[in-house]
Amino acid sequence: MAQDKTALVISAHSADFVWRAGGAIALHAKLGYQVTVVCLSYGERGESAKLWKSEGMTLDKVKAERRREAENAAKALDVHDIQFFDLGDYPLEIDRDAKYRLVDVIRAVQPRFMLSHSHYDPYNLDHSHTTKIAMECRMIAQAWGHNPGEKVLGAPQLYLFEPHQTEQMGWKPDTFLDITDVWEKKKAAIECMEGQEHLWHFYTNVAENRGNHFRRNSGGQSGGRAARYAEGFQSVYPRTVDEL
Amino acid sequence: MAQDKTALVISAHSADFVWRAGGAIALHAKLGYQVTVVCLSYGERGESAKLWKSEGMTLDKVKAERRREAENAAKALDVHDIQFFDLGDYPLEIDRDAKYRLVDVIRAVQPRFMLSHSHYDPYNLDHSHTTKIAMECRMIAQAWGHNPGEKVLGAPQLYLFEPHQTEQMGWKPDTFLDITDVWEKKKAAIECMEGQEHLWHFYTNVAENRGNHFRRNSGGQSGGRAARYAEGFQSVYPRTVDEL
Amino acid sequence: MAQDKTALVISAHSADFVWRAGGAIALHAKLGYQVTVVCLSYGERGESAKLWKSEGMTLDKVKAERRREAENAAKALDVHDIQFFDLGDYPLEIDRDAKYRLVDVIRAVQPRFMLSHSHYDPYNLDHSHTTKIAMECRMIAQAWGHNPGEKVLGAPQLYLFEPHQTEQMGWKPDTFLDITDVWEKKKAAIECMEGQEHLWHFYTNVAENRGNHFRRNSGGQSGGRAARYAEGFQSVYPRTVDEL
Amino acid sequence: MAQDKTALVISAHSADFVWRAGGAIALHAKLGYQVTVVCLSYGERGESAKLWKSEGMTLDKVKAERRREAENAAKALDVHDIQFFDLGDYPLEIDRDAKYRLVDVIRAVQPRFMLSHSHYDPYNLDHSHTTKIAMECRMIAQAWGHNPGEKVLGAPQLYLFEPHQTEQMGWKPDTFLDITDVWEKKKAAIECMEGQEHLWHFYTNVAENRGNHFRRNSGGQSGGRAARYAEGFQSVYPRTVDEL
Amino acid sequence: MAQDKTALVISAHSADFVWRAGGAIALHAKLGYQVTVVCLSYGERGESAKLWKSEGMTLDKVKAERRREAENAAKALDVHDIQFFDLGDYPLEIDRDAKYRLVDVIRAVQPRFMLSHSHYDPYNLDHSHTTKIAMECRMIAQAWGHNPGEKVLGAPQLYLFEPHQTEQMGWKPDTFLDITDVWEKKKAAIECMEGQEHLWHFYTNVAENRGNHFRRNSGGQSGGRAARYAEGFQSVYPRTVDEL
Amino acid sequence: MAQDKTALVISAHSADFVWRAGGAIALHAKLGYQVTVVCLSYGERGESAKLWKSEGMTLDKVKAERRREAENAAKALDVHDIQFFDLGDYPLEIDRDAKYRLVDVIRAVQPRFMLSHSHYDPYNLDHSHTTKIAMECRMIAQAWGHNPGEKVLGAPQLYLFEPHQTEQMGWKPDTFLDITDVWEKKKAAIECMEGQEHLWHFYTNVAENRGNHFRRNSGGQSGGRAARYAEGFQSVYPRTVDEL
Repeated sequence: MAQDKTALVISAHSADFVWRAGGAIALHAKLGYQVTVVCLSYGERGESAKLWKSEGMTLDKVKAERRREAENAAKALDVHDIQFFDLGDYPLEIDRDAKYRLVDVIRAVQPRFMLSHSHYDPYNLDHSHTTKIAMECRMIAQAWGHNPGEKVLGAPQLYLFEPHQTEQMGWKPDTFLDITDVWEKKKAAIECMEGQEHLWHFYTNVAENRGNHFRRNSGGQSGGRAARYAEGFQSVYPRTVDEL
Repeated sequence: MAQDKTALVISAHSADFVWRAGGAIALHAKLGYQVTVVCLSYGERGESAKLWKSEGMTLDKVKAERRREAENAAKALDVHDIQFFDLGDYPLEIDRDAKYRLVDVIRAVQPRFMLSHSHYDPYNLDHSHTTKIAMECRMIAQAWGHNPGEKVLGAPQLYLFEPHQTEQMGWKPDTFLDITDVWEKKKAAIECMEGQEHLWHFYTNVAENRGNHFRRNSGGQSGGRAARYAEGFQSVYPRTVDEL
Repeated sequence: MAQDKTALVISAHSADFVWRAGGAIALHAKLGYQVTVVCLSYGERGESAKLWKSEGMTLDKVKAERRREAENAAKALDVHDIQFFDLGDYPLEIDRDAKYRLVDVIRAVQPRFMLSHSHYDPYNLDHSHTTKIAMECRMIAQAWGHNPGEKVLGAPQLYLFEPHQTEQMGWKPDTFLDITDVWEKKKAAIECMEGQEHLWHFYTNVAENRGNHFRRNSGGQSGGRAARYAEGFQSVYPRTVDEL
Repeated sequence: MAQDKTALVISAHSADFVWRAGGAIALHAKLGYQVTVVCLSYGERGESAKLWKSEGMTLDKVKAERRREAENAAKALDVHDIQFFDLGDYPLEIDRDAKYRLVDVIRAVQPRFMLSHSHYDPYNLDHSHTTKIAMECRMIAQAWGHNPGEKVLGAPQLYLFEPHQTEQMGWKPDTFLDITDVWEKKKAAIECMEGQEHLWHFYTNVAENRGNHFRRNSGGQSGGRAARYAEGFQSVYPRTVDEL
Repeated sequence: MAQDKTALVISAHSADFVWRAGGAIALHAKLGYQVTVVCLSYGERGESAKLWKSEGMTLDKVKAERRREAENAAKALDVHDIQFFDLGDYPLEIDRDAKYRLVDVIRAVQPRFMLSHSHYDPYNLDHSHTTKIAMECRMIAQAWGHNPGEKVLGAPQLYLFEPHQTEQMGWKPDTFLDITDVWEKKKAAIECMEGQEHLWHFYTNVAENRGNHFRRNSGGQSGGRAARYAEGFQSVYPRTVDEL
Repeated sequence: MAQDKTALVISAHSADFVWRAGGAIALHAKLGYQVTVVCLSYGERGESAKLWKSEGMTLDKVKAERRREAENAAKALDVHDIQFFDLGDYPLEIDRDAKYRLVDVIRAVQPRFMLSHSHYDPYNLDHSHTTKIAMECRMIAQAWGHNPGEKVLGAPQLYLFEPHQTEQMGWKPDTFLDITDVWEKKKAAIECMEGQEHLWHFYTNVAENRGNHFRRNSGGQSGGRAARYAEGFQSVYPRTVDEL
């Protein structure tokens, strides 16, 4: 299997990786992983309401501000590399060139695992579209005939991180990750998202309640781990193991 | 989490554990686990067609023969303990006493993980009924008010092993286990099932093809593990992890 | 495969077979099948509102009236044999003896195919319970160790006939049967159900609209069959064929 | 439709109605509804870990304590009537007599709507069993032949309240109820559950985050209602309306 | 929430709104709503078989005839405004400009609720494609950065109206609307569809049988509303309510 | 219904039809069908790893070699006509012109049934995309306004053939076809796929195990057909029949 500790997060808009996978990012950075984040857009049109309510706002100003916030959050989470594809949002459209650009990143990173959005999201089709593209680009990166001579991709897991309304998105976590040790980093990253302050408390609650689910599933009142904060993920592909 | 390496297999009929989890059993025995198998029935009425075609067969003779085969298979797989509840089959009916008996075993074993059948089986309701009972008894074993003073159960995973027609049973494996190292043991156990010789080849094919799925999911032609035999399992509960 | 043309309908209440499978029964009778109907209850408590609104009604009177109607309908449909198990309804409870009685019928009939209710029915748990029992008794009838020496059952299809609110029951038809040739018989049988006149028009509409679905799926405006009345069925088991 | 404002909550264990539907209860009491709660068991064996850790605890003491807590919570929520069926838990078993007792309550209350657990719960089969019984007893209560002469039940909605791990239970809310006005009552009721203090914070988080979902679904940043606390429910049956 | 009574129907082909939502349109018009209908295409290639069988037919003639029929039907239903996007059908393709045009309509109308097709339709991908676009354009209309300064959209429900073969489309109605009072208007609109006379009777049957479902779900033989005609709808988003 | 015996296979890559439907093709050829195969791409980039590992390989050489193998396999299976659309793979993109080209083939062939891939494939989006296109082109081929004057398509079944990891693709076979009589032909065709020798044994195992499923579903130990090799298919549309 992969030699290096690397991971890749594919985020539709520039803040998604913070709320949904900030703990996983900081934790794996702490474990020695180089975590790369790709933001396909800045979420400049659809996820920047607060900015647009300011006087004299322009698309460029919004994008600059969203980029600044994302870079700060990435720093707080010890992200190795963050890339902005600037493909536009609402709707996010991805042509063949953009796909190949994403394939280039995947091959360069050779991630042990990838992270992206839920399969379905009736509120935000940019999210589900991103996941479809993540699967498609994973497939292209595995093709020996795509840029022959490059190192082809193995079979990294694709974890789907937590959407805003899990049940409406048909998202079911099969993996809970204890992020207690890096909670302060995630909290700091969340607080970089100045334009979406209404979500800070929401995602703190999520982390606490997922901590409860972690405790319950690791043994409950009889031997469970005292995790205080956790994140949940849904796996797309089966695991291959040597021990159950 | 649990200190001891233990596992528990709950099998509706006395041969199910062999075809469906023989590799997992032998592998974990090799890894130092004590694996206990509970056979709720012998499958004496419904899964012993070949025996019933013999002259002068009786229910007791069938049960004795099925028990002998299962004990031999258990030995071949290095099972730590095999218990026969003799509850009858086709249909398998489980009253409160039998549930409590199973709870006693669960608490005595304190398994790190459990194994049982698929959630649904339109061909064999004994199978799906067993899984429901496994979940129910896991719940009772966790209850502090059941036989107060006993050590209560933590939260072991329940893996559903492979049914005969996976797609008809709505069974989807999320975990593939490499059983190459213990394949000879599983093969030996399979061949103890003298009454069901028509299934030997079938389950050898299954193991080989699951080996292919293991290879594909561990990296395919780019870094995948060269597993030759594997078994697949579906998890009922989410995992709790420290690293993705 | 089976030599004789036989079919078995398992109906929770004594009128279900009429609305839901009357066309299939009459058509197969016409094709030379011997069709047996088992009514597990009379629907005397839960499906006889009109009767209970009469003066001086008793359980026995309701059952007698329901039986009379069902026998008339069976006659109109050319049913070969109709049996009443009189197990009570709302709720319908089926113990081991009743299961074995049903297994006896299944083995005696040796049906080429069976018919029963949808898998799920949040309005009427007697219906879904009946289907579960039908699958369980099919399994017992296949067991060589159940009444050894009797002819065991092969693997007849189990078709689920149309429930009252298809979408709420999660029922999806995969087979439409043209019943145009026997519509008059089904209509006559429906009109035997004097206590449920409010459903006559409803099930006529169903038959007409399923006729439309038949036409559309047999070729539409380009070669479709001009069926005027049809019934829909969902198969539980896969088919085995020599030609697609 | 029903003339009186009444509602019925069917709770597997004596605390379930508090966490999962306390807001709905208090709110409808405020709206003039008479809300009846039936607790099928006290949760004395399986949901009273803290009590069982005390010296000299007995089943009767646990039940008394659990009853006291539930009665206090009911008072805090302005429950009209609370009934304890004392059927035992882990497992909760319900025979025909208990069903008829529940039918008697349903008919006496003639609820405009009912509340119970999720359809599926792999952690707690008492919960899903209760829901199945709720649907079955609703059906029996509608039967004209059950205790003829009594007023039969109409077709009240059955709402499934929020389980502990929504995604694992396959529960999907289709209705969010604003409970901001009665949050203090729900908080007070929660704090009556002295034996399960570890859940107080969890369910406060749930109420806050469902408040966010309420805001989002009522219009978001463009006209949404500023609900601070909400509860979610899944409907079993379709609604019948005069306006979309 | 929205101040004005407005609704928006998004119809893939020019006749869809009649069969599937004609009652809802006429009823809401009667209730004082301004109902706007957008027909993305005329259904000129794929849903005009009868016209194409005439001598000397051309695409323009078919479109003109289909438009005439749709305008007549809209008039019969008291539609406030009907717009034809003329995007072509079989297949219906929708580029970014067409999406923005639809967003303009959505923002201009500011609908309290929207209506469109089922999520899935293996017979007619134009239908499911339309629904996806409806969700995407709803999302764009909510974006503060799309045409900043315009009034952004709140969170209107999206109801999916009844497809031709409900079970094949995986469509499940959760809302039945009593259209008895406007049935004559719907009937008149249906009869404007001269080219599809074979569907008149079909959709009359549908309306009658949905009336039966309405009666059953509003109380059945114990207090149900005597609706004679109804339409069914599936909601995409959860409701936000003050009373269950 | 259709007069001529014809069938159409739509294969994303040039080898898919061999592994997944080779038996069905050879069997129907033997039954007098003219079977046409359309390969949308050669699978030159993504399914030709072995070739790309050779020195001096180019895209054209890979395509030529893949075409040669597919033509040989087609010959071994008695394919009537094989067409290569050469649309490129990984990703496979299909524009309006390519759709119309496929519609032309469908109309020319007028297939009694069509064969294509599973609805979903998280490993290979070319596969699921092909199925969507197959459904869309079937729809266009049915449109009287598409190339008016041509013979429009009826309503052929679309069978989805077996994917590589059935459970991960959500594929459920409802039809098993006995291919024992043509197994040697399928074996010969498989062996034409020189570049994918690692799959020969895998698909032999599949055929044997599907043979077991055929036997079980045709009657098992009581009257089942002794099929040795079979293929499984999932139907998209309901069947229309004269006898169950």
